[in-house]
Amino acid sequence: MDLDSYYPKLYIDCLEESMVYEEVLKTVKENNLIEENEGIVVALSGGPDSVCLLHILHRMSKEMNLKIFAAHLNHKIRGLDAYMDSLYVMKLCEELQIPCFIRAIDVPKYCNDNKLGLEDGARKLRYEIFNEIREKLSADKIAIGHNKNDQAETVLMRIMRGTGLQGLRGIEYKREGGIIRPILDISREDIENYCKENNLSPRIDGTNLEAIYSRNKIRLKILPYMKEEFNENIVGSIVRMSKNIRVDSDYIDSQVDISYNEVCRKYEDGVYIFVDLLEKEHEAIKNRLIIKAIREVLGDVNSIDKKHIEEVLTLMGKNKNGKKINLPRGLYAYRFNDYILISLKEINYEKIEYNYEIEPGKEVYIAELGKTFKSKIVDAVDFNAETLGENVQYLDFGKIKGNITLRNRHQGDKIILRGGTKKIKELFIGMKIPREERSFVPLIVNDSNIVSVCGYRISANYLVDENTEKILEFTLE
Amino acid sequence: MDLDSYYPKLYIDCLEESMVYEEVLKTVKENNLIEENEGIVVALSGGPDSVCLLHILHRMSKEMNLKIFAAHLNHKIRGLDAYMDSLYVMKLCEELQIPCFIRAIDVPKYCNDNKLGLEDGARKLRYEIFNEIREKLSADKIAIGHNKNDQAETVLMRIMRGTGLQGLRGIEYKREGGIIRPILDISREDIENYCKENNLSPRIDGTNLEAIYSRNKIRLKILPYMKEEFNENIVGSIVRMSKNIRVDSDYIDSQVDISYNEVCRKYEDGVYIFVDLLEKEHEAIKNRLIIKAIREVLGDVNSIDKKHIEEVLTLMGKNKNGKKINLPRGLYAYRFNDYILISLKEINYEKIEYNYEIEPGKEVYIAELGKTFKSKIVDAVDFNAETLGENVQYLDFGKIKGNITLRNRHQGDKIILRGGTKKIKELFIGMKIPREERSFVPLIVNDSNIVSVCGYRISANYLVDENTEKILEFTLE
Repeated sequence: MDLDSYYPKLYIDCLEESMVYEEVLKTVKENNLIEENEGIVVALSGGPDSVCLLHILHRMSKEMNLKIFAAHLNHKIRGLDAYMDSLYVMKLCEELQIPCFIRAIDVPKYCNDNKLGLEDGARKLRYEIFNEIREKLSADKIAIGHNKNDQAETVLMRIMRGTGLQGLRGIEYKREGGIIRPILDISREDIENYCKENNLSPRIDGTNLEAIYSRNKIRLKILPYMKEEFNENIVGSIVRMSKNIRVDSDYIDSQVDISYNEVCRKYEDGVYIFVDLLEKEHEAIKNRLIIKAIREVLGDVNSIDKKHIEEVLTLMGKNKNGKKINLPRGLYAYRFNDYILISLKEINYEKIEYNYEIEPGKEVYIAELGKTFKSKIVDAVDFNAETLGENVQYLDFGKIKGNITLRNRHQGDKIILRGGTKKIKELFIGMKIPREERSFVPLIVNDSNIVSVCGYRISANYLVDENTEKILEFTLE
Repeated sequence: MDLDSYYPKLYIDCLEESMVYEEVLKTVKENNLIEENEGIVVALSGGPDSVCLLHILHRMSKEMNLKIFAAHLNHKIRGLDAYMDSLYVMKLCEELQIPCFIRAIDVPKYCNDNKLGLEDGARKLRYEIFNEIREKLSADKIAIGHNKNDQAETVLMRIMRGTGLQGLRGIEYKREGGIIRPILDISREDIENYCKENNLSPRIDGTNLEAIYSRNKIRLKILPYMKEEFNENIVGSIVRMSKNIRVDSDYIDSQVDISYNEVCRKYEDGVYIFVDLLEKEHEAIKNRLIIKAIREVLGDVNSIDKKHIEEVLTLMGKNKNGKKINLPRGLYAYRFNDYILISLKEINYEKIEYNYEIEPGKEVYIAELGKTFKSKIVDAVDFNAETLGENVQYLDFGKIKGNITLRNRHQGDKIILRGGTKKIKELFIGMKIPREERSFVPLIVNDSNIVSVCGYRISANYLVDENTEKILEFTLE
C-alpha cells in the first residue's frame, strides 16, 4: 500500500491548498506585485482574507527572501470582539514568528475631528496608519486582503451606481504608495478552504467598517440570485469582464498619454490645450485629455464631474475666444485664441499685459497669445503683394525709426489712417471685436507711434509708396 | 382666463408628449438613422413600443418626407390573442393611412425545419421577413421598437452571462441591413405615457417570442430591487455607462482598423498577419486584429471563442515556425516564418513548393516565406567580412556559371561541403531543424548544384579564396 492510497483525503487537500498558493504566486508575478528581498506589511484584521494572505506571504517569504510584518488596527475600541480579534492576531503572528504591530484607535473621534464620514474616515485612517508602520519599518509594500468576490461586488456596485470604463476596471492589483492585493484572484470559498486546510481558524471579520449594508445586499441577495438564475459562475464572469476591460482601459490610457504630449503643454500658469490638435482627437480621447489636464493642475480630479468636462469642451467652438468657465475648487478654464487654458489663476482678459521687442527677421513667440510673430525684410524690387500668404501684412521699413515693439492696446492709443486719426478703441468697436478679445489683438509700435493693428490695419504713415526701398512683411501665426 | 390655466392638464401632457418626439428626433439625427425621402418599414407587433414608434415615425414623415410602411407578423397562428393583435394593427394603420403588411407564420415548424431553437428561429425569421418586405417595397430601413429599458436589461443580462467591451455597448442604434432603433433612448414609462396621451391603446406584447423568462426576471426582479436599494435611476445609469463605453469601443475599433492595415494583408489564400508588427501592438489591439482577420476570412466570427484567439496568439512565440492550429469551421492558423496565416486551406508544410530565379543585385520577394532575398556583387578588394550584417552570407561570384535559383529542398538534394558531400536531409537533422520547417529553409541552386543552404552553409565549391575577384553577398530578410 503506497502513501497516495493510504492518505487519499490528505493528498487531495494538499493539492487544493497548493493551487491557491500557486494561483497567488501567479498573480504576484504577472502583476509585478512583489520583488525579491522586499519588506511587506500585511494589513491583518484577523478575518479569513487577511489571515490567508498572511499565511501565503509567509510561505512566499522563504522562496523570495521577503520580510513579512503584520499590522492590526483595533477600530472598535470598546468592543470585546475587537480585543478577541487582536488576541487572535497576536497568537497567529507568534506561531508564524512574524513581528506584529497593533494599534487601537478611536475611529469615530478621528472622523469627527476630520469631518469625514465613518466609512471614508476609517478607510483613510487605515491607509494612513499602515503607511506610517510601513515607513517606520522601511518596508516596501502594504498587502491588503481583497479577494475575487470583493472584486465582483465592487464592479457590480459601480455598475448599479453608474460608472464608465475606469470604474469597470474594479479594484487594482496595485496602487501608488506600495499598496498590493495578492489574493485578488482567489475566491472567498477558496480562501475559507485554505484556512481550514491550514488550521488557521480565522475570526469573523468584525472590524470591517466598510459600507457593510450595501455590500451585504450585493453579497447576500443580488449575487446569489444571479448565480441561481443566470450563471453558476457569476463572480468569475464579472471578474473576467473587469480584467478584459482593464486591458482596454490601459490601452486607451496609453494613447491618452501620447496625445497629451502632443496636444497639451504645462506652463507656469496652468495647462495649455491647443484647440486645433484637440479637435482632431477622437471623442474617447478628448474627454480624457481635459481630465488629465485638470489632474495636472489640481493633483487629482475630486469634485470634477462629467458635466464640467463637457463644459470645458464647449470652449473648442467658434466665437469662444475670451470665454471663461468657473470650475470647482477655484479652477478656471479659459479660451484664448488657439488654446484652452486650465488654470487656478483668475485672469482678467481686459488687463492682460505684454510687450515684446521685435527684431525684424527674427521670430518672437508671444506666450499670451500662443502665437509667433514672424517678419522678413525684402527689397521693394523683389516684392509682390499678390504672392503673400493670407494673413501677411507689409509696410515701408524705411519709415521705421528706432525700436519696434509688439504690445497689447493701452488706454488712449490712436492710429493715423488715411481717413485721419482714429482711437484704437473706436476702431475695435467698428470692427465688432468683443471687449474681452481686444487685448489679444496686438499693436505694433514704433517708439510712441502705432504702426499696425496686427491683422487689421497699417498706419498711413508707414504705407509702402513709390519711394519705398525695403519692405517689412509680417504675420502672426 | 387664458388657455394655459383653463387646460393646465392638457398643457402638461402636450409638453411631455412633445419631449418624447423631440428626444426621438435627437436620437435619429445624432446617429444618422434616417435621411430625408427614405422609405421605412416599421416592425409592428401591436405592443406599446412598436405602436409608439409607428406613431412617431408617422409624425416625422411629414417633416422629412418619409414613406412609412408597417409589417406585422402573426407568430402564434393558433392563438386568438394573436389575431386580435393583427386586427388592432390593421385598424391603427388604417387610421394613420399607413400601408400595412401582415404575415402569419408557423414559427415552430420553421424552427423545426431549420434546426433552430424557438427563440433564435423566431428572431431569424422576423428579420428575414421584414427584410423581404423591405426589398419588395424598395424601402431603405427597417425600424424596430427596442427601448431604453430593453437596453439596460440587455446590458445587465450580458454582464451576468459574461461579456467584454463589445457586449457592454448593448443594442446598437443601427445595424447593417438597414435595421434602425429610433426609440432606443426612450424609457418604457415614457412610451406608455406617449401612447396614453395619443389615445393609442396598444395591445399587450403577446407575440414577443424572446427569452421572456430570463428577461422577465431581470425586468421584474433584479432591476426593481436595484432601483429600490441602490439607485432610483438604475436604467439611466446602465444606459449611460453603455453609451460611454460605446464611445471608447468605437475609438478602439478605429485604432484596430488603422493597425489592421499595417499588420495584416489579405491574399488569395487567406489573411497574413506579420508577427514583428503584431508583437508591437498593445494587448487590447492584438486580440482584435486576430478577430478581424478571422472575420475577413469567414465573414463572421460565429463559434470562434476567446480561447481560439489566445491559441492563435501563441503562434507569435519563438520556435513556432511551421506550427498549425485547427480552428472551428474548417479554419486554420499557420505560423510561417515572419507571419501567421489565417486560412481555410489546409496546407501541408512538407509539400510547399517554390522556385524563384535570382538576378544578382536585385531584390526578390519570396511570398511563401514572407521574406525578401537581397544580394549584392562587390569587388574582392573592397570586401570586408567583418562589416557584414548578422545574417549575410557570401560566396565567390566567379564560380557561378549559368542561372541561380532559390527553391525549397527536393528529395535527394546534396551539398558539397569541405568535409565531403552531405545529403541536405542529414544536414537538417544534424542542425535540429524540425521536419515541418525544412521547406522554409531555401536552397540556392546553380544549375543543378546546391550553392548554399540559406542562412546555414555555403558549398565548398563556391567559397571565397585568394583568386576571388567578385564576391556575391546575400541575405534573406
